[in-house]
Amino acid sequence: MITVVIGFLNEIKYELGVVEKELLAAVKFPDPLMSEAATHLVSAGGKRLRPAFCLLGGKFYQFDLDKLLPLAVALELIHMATLIHDDVVDSSATRRGIPTIKARWGNRISTHLGDYMFGKSLVLISQYQNPLITAVLADTSVRMSEGEIVQIATSFNTNQTLRDYFYRINRKTALLISASCKLGAVACGAPEPIRQALHRFGHYIGMAFQITDDILDMTAKQLKLGKPIGGDLHQGIITLPAIYALHHSPARERLKQIITNRNKSDADVQEAITLIARCGGMDYAYKVAEKYIAKAKDELNDLPEVQIKKALRTMADFVGTRNF
Amino acid sequence: MITVVIGFLNEIKYELGVVEKELLAAVKFPDPLMSEAATHLVSAGGKRLRPAFCLLGGKFYQFDLDKLLPLAVALELIHMATLIHDDVVDSSATRRGIPTIKARWGNRISTHLGDYMFGKSLVLISQYQNPLITAVLADTSVRMSEGEIVQIATSFNTNQTLRDYFYRINRKTALLISASCKLGAVACGAPEPIRQALHRFGHYIGMAFQITDDILDMTAKQLKLGKPIGGDLHQGIITLPAIYALHHSPARERLKQIITNRNKSDADVQEAITLIARCGGMDYAYKVAEKYIAKAKDELNDLPEVQIKKALRTMADFVGTRNF
Repeated sequence: MITVVIGFLNEIKYELGVVEKELLAAVKFPDPLMSEAATHLVSAGGKRLRPAFCLLGGKFYQFDLDKLLPLAVALELIHMATLIHDDVVDSSATRRGIPTIKARWGNRISTHLGDYMFGKSLVLISQYQNPLITAVLADTSVRMSEGEIVQIATSFNTNQTLRDYFYRINRKTALLISASCKLGAVACGAPEPIRQALHRFGHYIGMAFQITDDILDMTAKQLKLGKPIGGDLHQGIITLPAIYALHHSPARERLKQIITNRNKSDADVQEAITLIARCGGMDYAYKVAEKYIAKAKDELNDLPEVQIKKALRTMADFVGTRNF
Repeated sequence: MITVVIGFLNEIKYELGVVEKELLAAVKFPDPLMSEAATHLVSAGGKRLRPAFCLLGGKFYQFDLDKLLPLAVALELIHMATLIHDDVVDSSATRRGIPTIKARWGNRISTHLGDYMFGKSLVLISQYQNPLITAVLADTSVRMSEGEIVQIATSFNTNQTLRDYFYRINRKTALLISASCKLGAVACGAPEPIRQALHRFGHYIGMAFQITDDILDMTAKQLKLGKPIGGDLHQGIITLPAIYALHHSPARERLKQIITNRNKSDADVQEAITLIARCGGMDYAYKVAEKYIAKAKDELNDLPEVQIKKALRTMADFVGTRNF
């Protein structure tokens, strides 16, 4: 288990350890091939941000790990299912620095393994007998799929607006993080104002998280990110720094040419990244992320004064400054 | 809409028409690319057997179309999602005689469209606020995925037993049909004995349905089936007629050789089908299907005497004799 240990998660370290065990248990089953493939992905780790947000959400009311556990595991399974299906469609060579499920086991296993994980998350959720939890996650999963399809439909399209971008990253990332925060509170029986504040907190954090993710795709060292640099540009996914540069770079015609080229080389991608950076694309995107983080912190003010608040503030700061 | 109209479904013709409209509505949304792809699959039709079984299940108690509609649509969406994901993984060229979603829109759209449909089914199901319905469908979807993976893991493996085969087709087909029958009764508030009898009826019918499907894969004309003949053998999927022949054909060594060959030609497949037919593989499989149909009819005896019983008996007979 190479789970990335992040300092600010110390507050819920024990609980995250329990989630990790349950996660491994959820993907263990008789067939050795499937078990190996699923365990492979779980063992590769990840930040477990969704379970963490779910647990943190529960801390604002009568925290009860037993009540949160199936939900926390389900949220990570949904996230992993989308990662696996992303790997299928994108033919990515690596994720988190190790070969993707697809590269090792083929498209067929990956598709069904993603379906299996999604189904398993539903089994865990159905234990709650709480229609709200089912309804929120059902709605979230539909909108996440919509986001994925819109991303495909708009790839290589340089006429995208900021609005298009925010629509996409909300569906891609913010919705599930927002649901994680809110449902953690729901599972612990927290009243409506707490749920709503956490819902908004999660939305803003999720937006900031995806924006920094999109910046890192252009700036991080391959080793740190665990995937090739400029992957989004290669796939025609136009993110915030690129949208900014397409409007503000003096070399925007050349940039447009590179971005719309479906057979761009690594050197082309590197040139595009340089053009985007030179006109301040990354700086702009960081500023937008910081605005979302400020909004997230504002939401914390409305929440009860519990010890975990400090940890959530640190988490918010981490999202703005992380380099992995 | 080229929905296959089957005589025995006349009893619920009106209700199926309403399901069809709701199904089209469920896959309509702003993005034109996605809407077109989804509508394409819905419009291509299909037997709508799962909604039909769901409606028929409701006929044994206080039938209420409004109560059944979201469930009936959800069941077909789950079925369609698995079809789309099957097309992704199998790289099938056609389904139901028209190009697959994959062939027309590519792997990426297909994967997310399947996810979207599955999510949408969950949205419909969550309306019921009935934990049993969610739990049954969650469990069913997990086991269906398990079945798909086991099918991949055991492909080209000629050591499979009858038990392996029945395990697979239960997950592939019988579970969802069984759930359709049972949940139709659940949605209408039918008491436990009715639910259980319908659950078993659906199981037996589902098993028979898949066995005849597997026979037709070897015997039907391409035009009738809407997909290439011998597709299972091409993909290394070893079905009941083949398992029988691998034990009883005097030419079983040659048969084994063809089946395990991953690059078999159309002529090889034709030879295998001839060998399987010659030793009585199809006849044996038909007999097994008939046994399941007899069991299904037995279950009907325990159910209340309602008008629809006659239609269900006819449906059972249809499954045993259908040639499409």
